[in-house]
Amino acid sequence: MTFELLAVDPSGGRRGRLHTLHGTVETPAFMPCASSGAVKALSPQEVRRAGVELILCNTYHLYLRPGHDVIQELGGLRAFTGWDGPILTDSGGFQVFSMAPLRKITEDGVLFQSHVDGSRHFLSPEQTIAIQQALQADIIMPLDECPPYPISHAQAADALDRTLRWAERSRDVHKGTEQMLFGIVQGGVFPDLRERGVRELTRLGFGGYAVGGLSVGESKAEMETVLRAALPLLPADRPRYLMGVGTPGDLLLAIALGVDLFDCVMPTRHGRTGTLFTSTGRLNIKGARYARDPSPVDPSCRCETCRHYSRAYLRHLFVSGEILGLRLNTLHNLHYYGHLMQEARRAIEQGCYGHFQAEVLTRLSGAESSA
Amino acid sequence: MTFELLAVDPSGGRRGRLHTLHGTVETPAFMPCASSGAVKALSPQEVRRAGVELILCNTYHLYLRPGHDVIQELGGLRAFTGWDGPILTDSGGFQVFSMAPLRKITEDGVLFQSHVDGSRHFLSPEQTIAIQQALQADIIMPLDECPPYPISHAQAADALDRTLRWAERSRDVHKGTEQMLFGIVQGGVFPDLRERGVRELTRLGFGGYAVGGLSVGESKAEMETVLRAALPLLPADRPRYLMGVGTPGDLLLAIALGVDLFDCVMPTRHGRTGTLFTSTGRLNIKGARYARDPSPVDPSCRCETCRHYSRAYLRHLFVSGEILGLRLNTLHNLHYYGHLMQEARRAIEQGCYGHFQAEVLTRLSGAESSA
Repeated sequence: MTFELLAVDPSGGRRGRLHTLHGTVETPAFMPCASSGAVKALSPQEVRRAGVELILCNTYHLYLRPGHDVIQELGGLRAFTGWDGPILTDSGGFQVFSMAPLRKITEDGVLFQSHVDGSRHFLSPEQTIAIQQALQADIIMPLDECPPYPISHAQAADALDRTLRWAERSRDVHKGTEQMLFGIVQGGVFPDLRERGVRELTRLGFGGYAVGGLSVGESKAEMETVLRAALPLLPADRPRYLMGVGTPGDLLLAIALGVDLFDCVMPTRHGRTGTLFTSTGRLNIKGARYARDPSPVDPSCRCETCRHYSRAYLRHLFVSGEILGLRLNTLHNLHYYGHLMQEARRAIEQGCYGHFQAEVLTRLSGAESSA
Repeated sequence: MTFELLAVDPSGGRRGRLHTLHGTVETPAFMPCASSGAVKALSPQEVRRAGVELILCNTYHLYLRPGHDVIQELGGLRAFTGWDGPILTDSGGFQVFSMAPLRKITEDGVLFQSHVDGSRHFLSPEQTIAIQQALQADIIMPLDECPPYPISHAQAADALDRTLRWAERSRDVHKGTEQMLFGIVQGGVFPDLRERGVRELTRLGFGGYAVGGLSVGESKAEMETVLRAALPLLPADRPRYLMGVGTPGDLLLAIALGVDLFDCVMPTRHGRTGTLFTSTGRLNIKGARYARDPSPVDPSCRCETCRHYSRAYLRHLFVSGEILGLRLNTLHNLHYYGHLMQEARRAIEQGCYGHFQAEVLTRLSGAESSA
């Protein structure tokens, strides 16, 4: 597995290509979340047609249900889910820290309770790697400590230090395998901690680098400060992944700061709650104003939803609780994100990313800035 | 719109072809329910690929939400939903009598309360026809009185008489339009009433004939008695539709008795509750026995679900509450019904329907008989 840096835009935006055993990923790229082994509401074929080349699966969810041993027995995540492209798995850390009702962190790992059935589990850095290997992901993540927001500098430093020790243990057990292991930079909203995180991780050496612990409640300015502190210190020849972020505007900003990979539940979750992304901002399909609206969600969009269905029909499906409505909304939103990344890649290739970003943000107008 | 009777099997099974303005329907045919304008969980393209040529939409649901006026304004059901083939709409009667919390029947029509918002509505036979014309269905149904089960002979006779008077009023307002209006035979489980119903309706003359008021709690023997009383009296050159029935075994029996068209929520609803139809009986995908089962739902099935996904994955999706599971289950069940009808048509063409029916029932073994 290798990463090729193809071009860098004057803005700082990077155009790259990630080669994996199961296909190539053009970057910047957006990964939809297939938490339990399915991008919610969509088939693998639809995900592919939305322009997706890489998906994220959640180790926490799959470890608890159906169990990584089951997936391994059935031939790994690709054979199990029918998605035949590259897969990134997270470490499970974020979910343990945000979803599990009970958790206790020790130097050895984290004890937690399943949100499904209340059973108790212990996850160590070594076991996290073993689980992701059983799942047969292409890109895997080391267990990290994901503190809540806000925390003090001292608390963030503690979490960073533990994350770094766990990263080293993860790297040691991962060595010699086919998968690409990323390092995760923690450090809260504190630039000095983020810088230290990057220095330590790059000293250890990883296949790629992720910025974690953002999108947890901090301001956009804080996020930007963190990215400006961490990203310039990362090696240019390694892919950079901003975890769990975010809105279209967030993505465009982070691309300009040098991020290559993104994941976020936003397009899929918003699809299921009726919020649709368009080139001129968001619309809530529930709105009575769409009851007789024969136009597509976004007249400039070429997705299946926009080619075949009216806002009136989508509104009707949504208010009637029809599953098809959730599918079509999700499909559109995922296509929107995929298309945005495609346009960003083209803009970087042409060296006009700054102009492109400004233009998109102007079109999105006020709708995006409030999100 | 015309109906061609192509062949009659020694068993009594009929092979026909229904020509509509929006496509041809090979009969015997199964119509899935698209109550609110969508076959639940599926796209029109998927419905088509499952072998479906005709769908049923519910007048009651669409009248209440989004309103037939909205659908008319947006170009009718085909333009609104994206299903470009033939559509049959029911009269709304069955839903009024089974779903609406308040109802009062007068000679003029039926007063009822919306199950959606509690609002009061009045539906006359004339208005029912007007609504279905606004929806632009190909085949429409007259308002009928659908009594519960069990009822007395006198009550069933009253409901039949009112249904016949309403049928005549419906025919009068429908005359001269492009749509095909069916007559609905009522009469409960009483053969004499069913016979009288058929005689009166055929005297009035309709494009096709439906047998209503079954699948409401009566025994299989009672259903068979009713069909044996009513069907032989119907004109051979008109399509015959058995409303709301049923299991694969029911369909095969009714085909032998001369039925051409069916609708039922069973394949779609069962799909959403995890019950899957196979050539060797039903299986409940929730079962722990499927947790590590790499085989498809039905190894002899060629549907998308069976070609791409294992029982283990479908079980995982179902127990995890994933929408994709509901889709894939529904897709399989609909394909099962479509394939069963395809095989039934072939058997009738070859004059071996009786043998085919016995063979299918043997394969289904005990599973079907208990349903």
